[in-house]
Parts: sequence; C-alpha cells; structure tokens
Amino acid sequence: MTVERIYFDYNASAPLLPEARDAVLAALEIDANPSSVHADGRTARRFIEEARREVAALVNARPEHVVFTSGATESASTLLQPDWTMGRGAVRMSHLFVLASDHPCLRGGGHFDPAHVSTIGIDGNGICDLAALRHGLENHDTETGLPLVAVHAVNNETGVIQPVAGIASLVAEAGGILVVDAVQAAGRIPIDMQDGYADFLILSAHKIGGLRGVGAHIAKSDLMMPRPLIRGGGQEKGHRGGTENVAGIAGFGAAARKMRESLGSIQRIAALRDRIEAGIRAIVPGVVFHGANVARVANTTFFSLPGFKAETAQIAFDLAGVSLSTGAACSSGKVGPSHVLEAMGADTALGALRVSIGPATTDDDVDRFLAIAKEIVARRGRKTAAA
Amino acid sequence: MTVERIYFDYNASAPLLPEARDAVLAALEIDANPSSVHADGRTARRFIEEARREVAALVNARPEHVVFTSGATESASTLLQPDWTMGRGAVRMSHLFVLASDHPCLRGGGHFDPAHVSTIGIDGNGICDLAALRHGLENHDTETGLPLVAVHAVNNETGVIQPVAGIASLVAEAGGILVVDAVQAAGRIPIDMQDGYADFLILSAHKIGGLRGVGAHIAKSDLMMPRPLIRGGGQEKGHRGGTENVAGIAGFGAAARKMRESLGSIQRIAALRDRIEAGIRAIVPGVVFHGANVARVANTTFFSLPGFKAETAQIAFDLAGVSLSTGAACSSGKVGPSHVLEAMGADTALGALRVSIGPATTDDDVDRFLAIAKEIVARRGRKTAAA
Repeated sequence: MTVERIYFDYNASAPLLPEARDAVLAALEIDANPSSVHADGRTARRFIEEARREVAALVNARPEHVVFTSGATESASTLLQPDWTMGRGAVRMSHLFVLASDHPCLRGGGHFDPAHVSTIGIDGNGICDLAALRHGLENHDTETGLPLVAVHAVNNETGVIQPVAGIASLVAEAGGILVVDAVQAAGRIPIDMQDGYADFLILSAHKIGGLRGVGAHIAKSDLMMPRPLIRGGGQEKGHRGGTENVAGIAGFGAAARKMRESLGSIQRIAALRDRIEAGIRAIVPGVVFHGANVARVANTTFFSLPGFKAETAQIAFDLAGVSLSTGAACSSGKVGPSHVLEAMGADTALGALRVSIGPATTDDDVDRFLAIAKEIVARRGRKTAAA
Repeated sequence: MTVERIYFDYNASAPLLPEARDAVLAALEIDANPSSVHADGRTARRFIEEARREVAALVNARPEHVVFTSGATESASTLLQPDWTMGRGAVRMSHLFVLASDHPCLRGGGHFDPAHVSTIGIDGNGICDLAALRHGLENHDTETGLPLVAVHAVNNETGVIQPVAGIASLVAEAGGILVVDAVQAAGRIPIDMQDGYADFLILSAHKIGGLRGVGAHIAKSDLMMPRPLIRGGGQEKGHRGGTENVAGIAGFGAAARKMRESLGSIQRIAALRDRIEAGIRAIVPGVVFHGANVARVANTTFFSLPGFKAETAQIAFDLAGVSLSTGAACSSGKVGPSHVLEAMGADTALGALRVSIGPATTDDDVDRFLAIAKEIVARRGRKTAAA
C-alpha cells in the first residue's frame, strides 16, 4: 500500500493549482510565436495579455506595468543594477540597501558593486531595523545618484511580514526607489500597488500555484525603468527580450486569478497552521517558533526543537513521507546555518524546520503530520535514553 | 466546416512534439522545487538532469557543460558581455564581432558598449565575409582583452548555413572565444561540440519542438565562463540563479532526443521544401529564392514574388489559413525591411515570404499550400489587370 506523501513545502514551490494546470494545457495547444502576426501568433498573444491582466489584478497594478520574466531571480537581477533610464535619459542608482534576511537574489546585491551595498539588520522578531534604514538613507549622497532599497515583504523561512508601509515612506522621503520582493506575500496578504505599496514588486508564479520558471516585476509607473538585462527582439515593450514562455505565463495568470479570489479563505489556512503549532508544542513543550511574536503570513511556521538537529529531523520526516524543509530550498544543498536565524540573533546550532502549507492542505494532512511528528520525537527520545 | 490551418512558421516557433508534450505533462505532476532535498525535490531534480543529458547528446557535448536558461535570448545576453571569469580570476572580452545577418539578440551587441562591437558583412548569398572577419581579428589589440565572436550557424530567414568551421579556425588563431547561435541549426544539421564546433553554443527549446521560454548555452569546456547574468540561489553550478523551469526543461530534453533520432529523416523535409519551391516557381516564374545558391537547412525557403509585396501576400495567406511569415517573428511587428535581405544586398522593396516546415508537415499540407498560393497569385493578377 502506498500512502500519499504530505507536501508541506509551499514556500519552496507550491503545487500547481488545477486552474493553472488547465491554463497551461490550453496554452500547450498553441504552437505559434506570440510575436508572429498571423492568426496563430495572435492567439498566443491573447494568452499573454489575458495573464497580464490577471497578474496585475492580484496586486491592483496596471497591466501595462507588468513585465513577465523567467522568475523572481531574473526580476531581481534586472532591478538590482545601477543603470536605469527615465525616457531616453540615464538615471543612476548609486547605492543599494538590502535586508539581512532578504532572499539571496536581493541580499547578494545583484549587479551592484559590493562596495555600494548596505545591509540593514533585523530585530529578534525578524523585523527591519527602520532606524538603521532611515540613518542609511539620510547619509546617502544624492549627488552620486538615487538610493535603491530592496526588501522582501514576507520572509520565506519565518513568514514574518515586514513593515513595508514604513519602509516605503522612508524611501519616498529620501527620493529613492523601493523594490519589494513579494514572492511569499502575493496571495497571502493584500497588496495594492495603486495605493503606493512599492515602486516595483517582484512576483514568482510557482510560489502561488503556477509553474516554475515564470515571474514578473511590476512597476507602480514606468517612468523610471532598469536597463533591460535580457536584450533581443524587443518583447515586453523593450523591457525584456526573448520569446515569451506562453504556457508558463498562461498558468501564472490563472494562478493569480485563483489566489485573488481565495484571499478571503486564508483563515482556513491560518487555522491549520495554528493547529500544527499547537500540536507540535504538545509534543515538544520546549519548541521555539521563530517570528511568532509578530505578524506572519498564515501558511508558514519555522521552529526549533530543543536537542534535535533540524537536518536530522528533516530526513526523518522525509523518510516518513513528509516534504518539509530546513530553510530556503535554494540554500538546501549548502552547508551553514540559516542567514535568517543568524540575522535574528537566534541560536542557529540546531537549525529549524519550516512547515509551509497552502490551499490544498487538509485537516487530514495535519493529523497525519502530527502523528508522524509524535512518532519521530518519541523514537528520538528512546535513542537518546539508550545512549 | 472548419479546415485545419497550415502551420508553415517553424522557424518562429515549432509545434510542440508529442514526445515533448508527454515529458511536460509528466513534469506537471511534480510539485517540488528541484533544489529541495526531500524526495519530491529529488524527483524534480532527476527530470532536469535527464534533460541535460539529452540536450547535450543532440550536439555531442558533455552534460555538465549545459547551462539551462529561459531561452536563446537570455543565453545571448549572458554570453555577450565583457566580464568573464577563468576559475577565480577575471577575463575581459574587449571586443565583439557579430554578423550583419545575426539575430537581433546577437547583432544588438548584448552588454557590450556599441563602440566595441564590429559588424561583419555577408555576401549576396548570405555567407559571412571571412576575409573581413580575419582582418578584424588581426587588428584586434589583445592587450585590451580577448575578442569574442558571435555568429548564427543558420540564418532564421533564409536558412543559409554559415561556414562555422572556417570561422572557428579564424577565432582560434586569434585566441578568441566563438559563440554560435545554433537555434535554427540544431536538429537540422549535425553539430559536434566535442569535435570543436564552437566554444559556446546557444539553443532554444521551442525551435526544436519544445516549449517557449526555455533554452541553454553549452560550453566546449567550462574553463572560461561569462559572469552570471541572473544571480540568486546558486543554481546551474552558480552560472544561472533562479528556480529551474522543470516542465520546460523536461520538454526540451524530450524534444532534443526526438530531434537527434530523427536527424536521418531530414531528407523527407528537404523533399517537401523542394516541392514547395518547384510549385511556387511554376506559379510565379520570376520568383527569387534568397540564399538558394548555397547550402541551406532543409526546412526553409525565403522568396520574393515580383510585383507582390510580401506583407500583402502574408495577410492573404493568413486569411486563407496558412501561417507563414515575412521574416523573423520578433521583428514582425516592426516597420522596415529585413536586415538579412539588406545585408545580402537584395532588393528589399517587396520584402520576402518565409516558409519554414518541420517534422509534422505533410505532402497534403504542401498540396493545399500550393493550391492556395495559385489562387492568391491569380486573384492578384486579376486585380492588377483590372486596375
């Protein structure tokens, strides 16, 4: 008898939504290049423009300000560069501010010289040090160019929500540009670009139930734009060359529509997450839930079990049929503690386990997961006692 | 009654091969991030590594030298930059040589300063001016850095095959790096990277029957590599960050395998193309087939009809149910003559029609196309006579 695995790793990659799958399958029927002027090409084009409207609607942006890319990392690499344009003129971003807990695609500084990148710390709850950001921006020399600030809206490991409105007003005061990585926020908290949420937003399709390999950056206005990183046939109004990923974009649009419609049912996911945390606390009373004192998205919990290395626990869960992680997937293969826990000043020796759930997670999944967790912890206890 | 359209625009985007479709559908079942260490993540990883072997095999390269990207344009933008590395050291490419008939993603110079880009002409048949390239390379000042040469193997409009071996020996003599855009060559002519075809090859999945939005560059060796354009979580051995397009890559692998196996049946496609050319000549005796005096790939014909503007003819064919083009798809929306015809010194006033076929093209398609062409030309004749 095969038991279905429990997929509790939405923050690494969310399962393909049925609606997105249908859109992808429909797009697979279209063979043409969306730049071709014949009827087949125009059909492919319609898939893209329909998706553009849906992705824009998820964050209340204007469709014409959506630039489709191959993913959030490409969008970050495009936006995190010194060379920007305003109309035909050049604009220089002379300094980049990132958060210590940002994803590597921001924290790495993109195409900035490391000498021109400042890392802003976070507090023990994972929240941006606004005073340090204000201080950095006040000391920025605008003679050299504009300051660019790149922060994540929601941390991929802890689920902690950053005070984006506070950050945005500091950046606006300084006359800078704010890039917000909303990869883990979209579909989980409301985002309103027309209400001035950020100057640029970065989204990823596969974190909201679309395919891997598709993303977008979305401008509040296209007055100032980064120089195109990928240069070719002038697609995406010249902001991003290369034949479009029609199937991936179609799926992205469908996922965005579904997530927009289901934002209201986030309470169900919150209840499941709360049940997971209560269950784990009952099994391991000394558990530490990172970031649990501040606002978090509903689907994520990140916790350390006293005396139990997270890597060891992750393997045990995997063998028992549960996919969860010990941090960001893209860092999974790497040695060394979570940079998020380090930045929070947490004890990183044991690491932490991340459980991230989503629309397809059921009560039964949670029950099975807690039974497995109980068994793993009990087995660990017997081993420790025997040693 | 609906009649099925005739798709004669393979060079813009080839129809999805059934084998690639099956691979894509199989990959859609995998929800995980291929960087995740759990069982689901490892399954996603296997899809990518299997595809890497297949794509390498198509051009007899080593799988570890394949870097998957979001398409040929991203690969070109990555390779066409001055900043390269050799191990931990920096290497500078100080000058770029491109062909006048290259795709815009090469001809535009990528990330080179336009002052450091030289365009090499082609002759009336569309063939690279080897003497001019030799002269350019001889005059290159190696004190400033290495010369980088970027040429297409097969022209996307004419199908003309460049003398890549001759170009490669000139570049090797000059100690430069040769990047070959093999987007229109792969699966149509044999390419052997281990036999020294080029230093880097650029491939696109959707030109060989995979999905749009996937491509690769393939190195002969990874001794010298361009600095990563997309920087993030260290995927693709650090050469290209961002979560991989698992479904697209799986389809790319399956398409590559199919094209490798079917290289032998290219004669069938050549016979269909020859029948198309003979048929058009019978209808319009004054037709000019561009590049027909030199070696071309089997699937492409690019021709001008005396007294008949290509744009007008293209619309007539589209209305009659035939998808063909007047040049490269990515330039379709733009005004102005084909840069390929211009570079060949051809009369560009009328433009030209491109018919590009492939594995799914049938004898019946050719018969129907020629009947439609006959009708369109006859109607045009009646109109002209009446005017």
